[in-house]
Amino acid sequence: MNYITIDELPRHIGEDVRLRGWVRRFRSSGKISFLVLRDGTGEVQCVFVKNEVSEETWAGLEDASHEACVSVAGLVRADDRAPSGVELTATGFELLGASAEYPIQPKEHGVDFLLEKRHLWLRSARQIAIMRVRDEVIRAIHDFLHDDGFTHVDTPILTGAIGESAGTLFETEYFDHGKAYLAQTGQLYVEAAAAALGKVYCFGPTFRAEKSKTRRHLTEFWMVEPEAAWMDSDQNMDLQERFVSSIIQRVVLKQREQLEALDRDVSKLEAIVAPFDRMSYSDAVDLLQKQGSDIEWGSDLGAAHEAQLVEGREKPLFVYDYPKGAKAFYMKENPDDPRTVKCDDMLAPEGYGEVIGGSQREDDYDKLLSRIREEGLPEDTYDWYLDLRRHGTFTHSGFGLGVERLVTWICGLDHLRETIAFPRMMTRITP
Amino acid sequence: MNYITIDELPRHIGEDVRLRGWVRRFRSSGKISFLVLRDGTGEVQCVFVKNEVSEETWAGLEDASHEACVSVAGLVRADDRAPSGVELTATGFELLGASAEYPIQPKEHGVDFLLEKRHLWLRSARQIAIMRVRDEVIRAIHDFLHDDGFTHVDTPILTGAIGESAGTLFETEYFDHGKAYLAQTGQLYVEAAAAALGKVYCFGPTFRAEKSKTRRHLTEFWMVEPEAAWMDSDQNMDLQERFVSSIIQRVVLKQREQLEALDRDVSKLEAIVAPFDRMSYSDAVDLLQKQGSDIEWGSDLGAAHEAQLVEGREKPLFVYDYPKGAKAFYMKENPDDPRTVKCDDMLAPEGYGEVIGGSQREDDYDKLLSRIREEGLPEDTYDWYLDLRRHGTFTHSGFGLGVERLVTWICGLDHLRETIAFPRMMTRITP
Repeated sequence: MNYITIDELPRHIGEDVRLRGWVRRFRSSGKISFLVLRDGTGEVQCVFVKNEVSEETWAGLEDASHEACVSVAGLVRADDRAPSGVELTATGFELLGASAEYPIQPKEHGVDFLLEKRHLWLRSARQIAIMRVRDEVIRAIHDFLHDDGFTHVDTPILTGAIGESAGTLFETEYFDHGKAYLAQTGQLYVEAAAAALGKVYCFGPTFRAEKSKTRRHLTEFWMVEPEAAWMDSDQNMDLQERFVSSIIQRVVLKQREQLEALDRDVSKLEAIVAPFDRMSYSDAVDLLQKQGSDIEWGSDLGAAHEAQLVEGREKPLFVYDYPKGAKAFYMKENPDDPRTVKCDDMLAPEGYGEVIGGSQREDDYDKLLSRIREEGLPEDTYDWYLDLRRHGTFTHSGFGLGVERLVTWICGLDHLRETIAFPRMMTRITP
Repeated sequence: MNYITIDELPRHIGEDVRLRGWVRRFRSSGKISFLVLRDGTGEVQCVFVKNEVSEETWAGLEDASHEACVSVAGLVRADDRAPSGVELTATGFELLGASAEYPIQPKEHGVDFLLEKRHLWLRSARQIAIMRVRDEVIRAIHDFLHDDGFTHVDTPILTGAIGESAGTLFETEYFDHGKAYLAQTGQLYVEAAAAALGKVYCFGPTFRAEKSKTRRHLTEFWMVEPEAAWMDSDQNMDLQERFVSSIIQRVVLKQREQLEALDRDVSKLEAIVAPFDRMSYSDAVDLLQKQGSDIEWGSDLGAAHEAQLVEGREKPLFVYDYPKGAKAFYMKENPDDPRTVKCDDMLAPEGYGEVIGGSQREDDYDKLLSRIREEGLPEDTYDWYLDLRRHGTFTHSGFGLGVERLVTWICGLDHLRETIAFPRMMTRITP
């Protein structure tokens, strides 16, 4: 008899089948035993009745310890009470891989312990649900961008050029070339690719050596960065709101079961439909001041300001056109107010904070060079980037969306660390 | 009048349109000028007749230098001679971004020069064709694996654990934790994820600090690594041949135009259809010896041996069950011949060498521990990996496919360096 997988069971009702997987739960009354088996495609309850199985099978169930790898044979029965709609009337049991003293028990463990056992913690129903949502988010990102005419271009991780926030870079010796740095963004590179292919995106790991222990920071996280020729700042926000609503609605459609397993209020996600409200930075500061904040025009918005601005909103809010001093050197000077740049942050509701930062890029050679000099950046390092303005400079914009922040929001989690299989934080580099 | 893109032109025959893009080529007889415009979606020839355009427009064409960014207005005409099937009878011209002394000219440049100008070289027709093929390969990888039931799981780049080939690792300081290393593989991590999700894959950049200057090495390259529970070594080869033929046939179907632009003999790719021949390492050594090679049983196969084995073959060849000493510690000991391990290399035809390395993993705790000790690897570093054998160990296999090697083969290139937007080699870390 060939093995089948648990997700195939509903097509085999009334048949004898064999399954293999791991023991999620086991309990026995002495006359009847219940084994919940999981195999990566789902879970099913296998019922062993002492009088109806061989003595050898019944005795073998002693080995059905938590997370042992086992094979179970039996008859598939429809069962409306079961989440999967089926149950197995078991006839055979075989141990494939024992598991003694499985370290994660169905009690409360501290998060440090669970992170130390992350390679096993991944097997829990909650972690599986999060990984399935993350997988759907990643698929939705690729599909949306390709359907919209974007070409995937991988940008380098090891780079001699420094993106932004020098001082928070991981560095490594690179043969005879001195130091190389781990990329914090692929943006400068996708700008070059946009002049070749029009609409492009990179999607890879990015690195920040930030000494930050907040629940919103990882030292290694995945970011998708679309960049498009001929797109201005307003069109950039149009794209962002279409992009984010499309991803979220797809997850709601395809992974509702996982979201419900995570106790996520799905109606909150169903409300995330484009368009989103847009507020200029200056209006945001006015509003905050009216609400009693002592923020002054020119300062960046902090997490508390952001939370105040989205409070009571069901959908994300764009805040756009920030003061130049608060933002990166490559953002385009606003022709209507040169104290500001053409950029936007997308702030998620429910306190999930900034999920996207985007901008139109400075396409004027002289202005870009001045900004590089003002920031004291090494001019020769950026000479190739300036070439993009020397040879056929063009209107273009783009943005970066952090996958872990988006998955945290979608799953309704407290901390980014559960949204990636092996999180890297200031305090953790293993397993 | 709104702008349209070049790929939309066939739907606008007989209409007046506006385009924007970059000047690929420009030539003028004094009475008639031909401007080939590219915009990332395609190329089109725009014809300006001196007597039929304004003096201002004709004079403006002085700015139509190589890679200048321009806007062109005109009437769309069907033209069977044009590759895109259309031509533009131009009426207007506007310079958007000048380009003086564009460094890449239509003459032969040395490859070092071109790599130094990689941010501009990407705009050439050949590089655009390669990037479109790469994009299709990446899409095909994701689609195949999802259709086959695999879940995407991102594995860490920064790691305290050392995968294989210690001594060729990039390292970085990691806060108070000492050194972290850039991952050479995500395999150990996808093994953990396979016990949670059954069939998984990671797909990310991997790093080798190898002092190698061959045309088959990059220091940073992208690798997809599927890993599946319940899959043995034979089934692993089944999956690999289905995977590779499916990717290649999809590229042939969807990117034929790009392959032809690269002068690729597409019939050679059309021949790549599963199944592929399989030869044991021992038989391979016998064959090589008969053909006069002095290779001895136990040595790894070199590139020359591989080339000899695939010579005259139209399809890839699997060589399987290598001697233990030639392969990594995590490969499963062959029960039928414990001198060997259950592994395979897929060797591409036409001299493209190894594109896949795969194996069934050692699932026996004691054997794995012995191998770790024999190799002198730090036992505590691998303790979490041993946990996978302590708790529900299971038959599983997987493989790694290098994207750049596959794209090199598909495009028929001489060197990996053109298959990634910003290649990193021992001799190059910029731009």
